[in-house]
Amino acid sequence: MPPEALAIAANTGDDFEHLGLHISPDLDTVMYTLAGIADRERGWGIAGDTWRFMKQLRRYRPGNEDGWFALGDRDLATHIHRARRLAEGATLSEVTGELCRRLEVRPALLPMSDDPVRTMVQLASGGELPFQHYFVRERCEPAVRGFRFNGIEQARPAPQLLEWLGDSALAAIIICPSNPFVSVDPVLNIPGMRDAMRASRAPVVAVSPIVGGAALKGPAAKMLRELGLPVSAAAVAAHYRGLAAGFVLDAGDAKLAADIEGELGMTTRAAPSIMRTLAEREALARAALDLALELRGRKRTGSL
Amino acid sequence: MPPEALAIAANTGDDFEHLGLHISPDLDTVMYTLAGIADRERGWGIAGDTWRFMKQLRRYRPGNEDGWFALGDRDLATHIHRARRLAEGATLSEVTGELCRRLEVRPALLPMSDDPVRTMVQLASGGELPFQHYFVRERCEPAVRGFRFNGIEQARPAPQLLEWLGDSALAAIIICPSNPFVSVDPVLNIPGMRDAMRASRAPVVAVSPIVGGAALKGPAAKMLRELGLPVSAAAVAAHYRGLAAGFVLDAGDAKLAADIEGELGMTTRAAPSIMRTLAEREALARAALDLALELRGRKRTGSL
Repeated sequence: MPPEALAIAANTGDDFEHLGLHISPDLDTVMYTLAGIADRERGWGIAGDTWRFMKQLRRYRPGNEDGWFALGDRDLATHIHRARRLAEGATLSEVTGELCRRLEVRPALLPMSDDPVRTMVQLASGGELPFQHYFVRERCEPAVRGFRFNGIEQARPAPQLLEWLGDSALAAIIICPSNPFVSVDPVLNIPGMRDAMRASRAPVVAVSPIVGGAALKGPAAKMLRELGLPVSAAAVAAHYRGLAAGFVLDAGDAKLAADIEGELGMTTRAAPSIMRTLAEREALARAALDLALELRGRKRTGSL
Repeated sequence: MPPEALAIAANTGDDFEHLGLHISPDLDTVMYTLAGIADRERGWGIAGDTWRFMKQLRRYRPGNEDGWFALGDRDLATHIHRARRLAEGATLSEVTGELCRRLEVRPALLPMSDDPVRTMVQLASGGELPFQHYFVRERCEPAVRGFRFNGIEQARPAPQLLEWLGDSALAAIIICPSNPFVSVDPVLNIPGMRDAMRASRAPVVAVSPIVGGAALKGPAAKMLRELGLPVSAAAVAAHYRGLAAGFVLDAGDAKLAADIEGELGMTTRAAPSIMRTLAEREALARAALDLALELRGRKRTGSL
């Protein structure tokens, strides 16, 4: 697939202000990955980055009140440049585009919105935590009872994103196998976003992040449990009811397909979903795209 | 001399906002020097610092519009911490004190003022440049016709600095062998500063930065020439007329002493002024202090 044919909208509910800088963890992970400089083992930041800045900062702030969020020396340039451009009046979409051009990332990458949306994790014990505090500082340990997306009522989808969704040539809208509550819902809950997805000529296909009753990574399974939902691909499919026409689940979960098709009216596709190699990544992407292309014909003829 | 007996007021006319951070070059050079971590060869920054941040930043800003001011990875922690604390409402005096405590700097270090003063270099060709642009970006190449200290009318001396000057136990006020126009004048020209120095129980002793008709480092000699003044320790002494009671000049300039004593009414002391080793630094400091202690006796008895 030519890189120009791919556009990615990333969750910015994880964004936060840290040390006076603007941190966009999801945008950066996608950007660094596509630039070929991501630290894949650690799962964030730049491969081979160094920690001279952090070490000196900890000397100034020994109470460690900020030290829980590590910023590598090279990574820091991204955050300082972004904070500077935002202060100059650029939108997050514009800054992201500039960074991607400098890093020679060819697929289009956009934040879900240029407006600030901040995911708050509501705790079973009462109170709430900003997402990064929950995710990084508290290592997802507190039990959750729900989520709130601060500022989402005033947020609009990124303008370019609405253009993409309205493009009659759009072939597929893929919801990646990510956490439905904290990675996908902030995107979907922006006012106007679901309507634009439904109105698109392209069908929506979601890929399950739950495989065999466990999350491939991150706290999705733990969250499903704490919310009283079954830890199952079927629960994820139900979460996207009314939006996704297609659902890709792991080949080992194929037994759930009949229920999902019958109860939710989705077309399913079973495919190996554990991605350890580039070939496995490509195969799963191909399965999702093939399903979307099949469904697109039906959406265009009105049978979907 | 016990470190508790020494207090240093540093010029902040060189300060500037860069990449959204607050840079205080003179405070940092004093602080890093006293912490034993200064890069003495380069003359700024932290010894052994690395440049991962700058290299990545230049990738994002290839036009180099900000790249002329280099920030090392460790050094950056100072600027980010300071910007953060200032944004939280701390004064520059407070932040400087905190940084010094963390770096185990024992003499007291203060900015000349907690209020922003920005040295502007007025060019012979017309127009003016902020000091760092002149000093670093333009390498002091443009000819100057004068200096302006933006904001100085509204600035007050740092409160702690007025306390020191008013302390009856103060033994000496030393104006270090620094550039009279851009390093010392911003301090002296803060409203109330000269009066507080004159009212102090301690005499003011200035040390010449001009040795044998040349500046030991920096653009002081070039500036004297461009302003139409002789490049001589005597011109520096004349610059401090009415404020300094004592003047230390290089042993090789001893022939100028009689004129300085006769025309300016200052007591002079000739001492080796080229400081290559710690012993030479200590000897010059001792000469300035000895002169001050002699003059103090005379100031107390009213004969000065």
